[in-house]
Amino acid sequence: MFQAAAKTFSVAPTASVCRGILSSIRQYCKKTPTKLRVSEALSSAELGANVKVQGWVRSVRPQKANLFLHVNDGSSLQSLQIVAGSELLTFGSAIEVTGILKKSPNQKQPVELEADQIHVVGGCNPVDFPFKIKERHGLEYIRQFPHLRCRTNAFSSLLRVRSEATTAIHSYFKENGFVQIHTPIITSNDCEGAGELFQVEPSGPEHEEGENFFSVPAFLTVSGQLHLEVMSGAFSRVYTFGPTFRAENSQSRRHLAEFYMVEAEVSFTQSLEDLTKVMEDMFRSATEHVLAHCAEDVALFHKHVTPGHRVSPEQMTLSRSTFRITYSEAIDILNRSSQKFTFPTDWGCDLQTEHEKYLVKHCGNIPVFVTDYPYDLKPFYARDNQDHPKHTAAAVDLLVPGVGELCGGSLREERLDLLRARLEEVGLEETYSWYLDLRRFGSVPHGGFGLGFERFLQCILGIDNIKDVTPFPRFSHSCLL
Amino acid sequence: MFQAAAKTFSVAPTASVCRGILSSIRQYCKKTPTKLRVSEALSSAELGANVKVQGWVRSVRPQKANLFLHVNDGSSLQSLQIVAGSELLTFGSAIEVTGILKKSPNQKQPVELEADQIHVVGGCNPVDFPFKIKERHGLEYIRQFPHLRCRTNAFSSLLRVRSEATTAIHSYFKENGFVQIHTPIITSNDCEGAGELFQVEPSGPEHEEGENFFSVPAFLTVSGQLHLEVMSGAFSRVYTFGPTFRAENSQSRRHLAEFYMVEAEVSFTQSLEDLTKVMEDMFRSATEHVLAHCAEDVALFHKHVTPGHRVSPEQMTLSRSTFRITYSEAIDILNRSSQKFTFPTDWGCDLQTEHEKYLVKHCGNIPVFVTDYPYDLKPFYARDNQDHPKHTAAAVDLLVPGVGELCGGSLREERLDLLRARLEEVGLEETYSWYLDLRRFGSVPHGGFGLGFERFLQCILGIDNIKDVTPFPRFSHSCLL
Repeated sequence: MFQAAAKTFSVAPTASVCRGILSSIRQYCKKTPTKLRVSEALSSAELGANVKVQGWVRSVRPQKANLFLHVNDGSSLQSLQIVAGSELLTFGSAIEVTGILKKSPNQKQPVELEADQIHVVGGCNPVDFPFKIKERHGLEYIRQFPHLRCRTNAFSSLLRVRSEATTAIHSYFKENGFVQIHTPIITSNDCEGAGELFQVEPSGPEHEEGENFFSVPAFLTVSGQLHLEVMSGAFSRVYTFGPTFRAENSQSRRHLAEFYMVEAEVSFTQSLEDLTKVMEDMFRSATEHVLAHCAEDVALFHKHVTPGHRVSPEQMTLSRSTFRITYSEAIDILNRSSQKFTFPTDWGCDLQTEHEKYLVKHCGNIPVFVTDYPYDLKPFYARDNQDHPKHTAAAVDLLVPGVGELCGGSLREERLDLLRARLEEVGLEETYSWYLDLRRFGSVPHGGFGLGFERFLQCILGIDNIKDVTPFPRFSHSCLL
Repeated sequence: MFQAAAKTFSVAPTASVCRGILSSIRQYCKKTPTKLRVSEALSSAELGANVKVQGWVRSVRPQKANLFLHVNDGSSLQSLQIVAGSELLTFGSAIEVTGILKKSPNQKQPVELEADQIHVVGGCNPVDFPFKIKERHGLEYIRQFPHLRCRTNAFSSLLRVRSEATTAIHSYFKENGFVQIHTPIITSNDCEGAGELFQVEPSGPEHEEGENFFSVPAFLTVSGQLHLEVMSGAFSRVYTFGPTFRAENSQSRRHLAEFYMVEAEVSFTQSLEDLTKVMEDMFRSATEHVLAHCAEDVALFHKHVTPGHRVSPEQMTLSRSTFRITYSEAIDILNRSSQKFTFPTDWGCDLQTEHEKYLVKHCGNIPVFVTDYPYDLKPFYARDNQDHPKHTAAAVDLLVPGVGELCGGSLREERLDLLRARLEEVGLEETYSWYLDLRRFGSVPHGGFGLGFERFLQCILGIDNIKDVTPFPRFSHSCLL
């Protein structure tokens, strides 16, 4: 509107002319209906108000002389009911409705909008639109339409939960004095020597073969830990929350090529307890935040999408008795069990998902910390417990119901001589001379952990497939859009 | 401590034994000094309290019988002054100090800690340590030590400001009902056909030449806009804040290969005004938040690091009169100017940094919106103003003092026929058939913008080189760590 008014000037308007126009527009706007978002309309107490609502038609139900529409604009799971004449309106259209907000006779909704005027902003051909009115489409079906799946109730709920969970995690760290660090995505480090890295070079024929853009081979990060450790030489609490990558040739329900990690480092730690306390607090605080702020959205998943989800998040987070066992105790439990496992359970073997899920069940379906893993299983930076003959490292995993490993962490080896000896053993002393520097200049005992953000969402919502908790899932042979 | 106690058990302790130990430890801890962070100690009113502080020695000053130390733990720019006997302590060491918190005789600091006990947690050899006591190292010098530069005052201030600015931006969007979307980093789109893309494939010899991991060529994102537009078909307000990439062969002060962008999309827009209002509000709100929460850190830059910084951020944000001119008016201004420009200023030419900086100055060194750029300069998704013969698109840039272009945005072409015609013209109809779908099913007028986060920091702090506002800068021939 403003643009149209301004465009009648052939020369540039002066500031005072502009102010005059703006003020007349504001005058005019006062008489026009109040624009409300759907969530605002639903919680509005101003019955009888003349309002305007914009959104997409999520259902159309003809009844007697009237048409009942549900309009949604992404601001809440619940749509606003519109009572209209018998206009021709299709599912999926974008509309703008002006009318009077009234108390709804239906107990399920507080208000409804009695339409004076409905303007179809953008139509929708119901034959071509892949989602059909009154059908409940499965997660697998809607996953085929990455550009449209946000228009379903289930996926828009997921996106609101994901957004709120992000807020929850930032809030936890902010309230606890952590500084957020944007650790780099492109790195010349191969953090854990884990392989399965993506390499990065400019595309196009003009890029000369054999010469690296960064002068060295560069990869997508698999973890921001080492960069966070840099910061924990000056900040006693730091965290990062961003994308990480694995070039794993897998299409499983548990793996993505691109996923989000929350990682934190705490300086001046005294024991693993300092770390598990932060892990537990963050997990509990984020879960409680999501349950409090997205109750309707979470309930949708628990009721309809994942009816088999047995463990309530309340049960997990409100239990003040998170279990703590050592790796050695875990191995004892597995070996005493009558269950047959596919993978070996000898002391020294890594715990597999089947083992983790068994341990969670064994402990009563609550989150379980497993501590003090065999030294040889852990990367070079894990702190040596020096407890020969068993020889363990001060590492800890947090296992949760339905998912297995949610977080992994450790104290980091802060003692220069021990760290140097281990790096020499694996021939990485040169490569990590900068990392040794961190121990040469004002080294402190410290530790940290990483949490898989998608697994956290799966755990809260009881969603089985990791592809259903991320907006645009990337995995081998699939990179849609 | 807990770990040590627990380790005296040769068998696994039962839960009740654990609780007993924990309770005695808690009893014991009550008598020990209160652990405070430096920022907590500085603002503590409990003079006479017995406290423990941990951090790194930022200065050592012997005076008469005493030694004055400044200890910093990253929680604030200001360090805590420690009054100690004449212990042998070096700059850069990590220490733990126990003592009594007292009112400081020095007016510059509220309290000081009279040390009972100082424990050197990690020493620091002052000969090898690249930063020297009492020297003010330039930003260029400290940039050579990416693993240590956070230990300088300037760079730790920068990191606190960057963290707080991140919070500010998330808060703005949260408070205004935007849903945060994690748009993908790896994408098969080439958003603007801009070239200069990084391509991504697994590293290692086992990866077969010619076969793509994702079955299609995949790139690092240059913008999350198109993915956000997907979401703006179901959410009326969405945003994303994450890393973006350009394989630009440049080592300039203005460009990085990896940088952060804030991008937002708003549905049901009526004019560019709807967009510029969001851009202006966000810029003002984020700037005010940073100035309010990081006053000391910002002041450090304004005083010492960038003394040439002329425009105060207060001036920029508190001025309620952000200027708005059209591209055509901008061209007139440039052509009337007596300044010689390197690049041409004919109608139809893109504005260069020299032009942007001139326009900002011309308008009084305040932020300036330039609107309605030539249609042919803008990408396929910009909305056609249909104002022949000039022919412009509804695009807008926000120019700010010292930096030039900070944000760029546009209304998006929501009309299926116009969009399809333009995509056909450039032969991209097939590639973007999914994007055309967004206009087929419930299309709405919408628009969005992107803000360069590093430029925002440069603008607030008056930092000339973009490499000095990012923790680990990546650019051609440089990817340290």
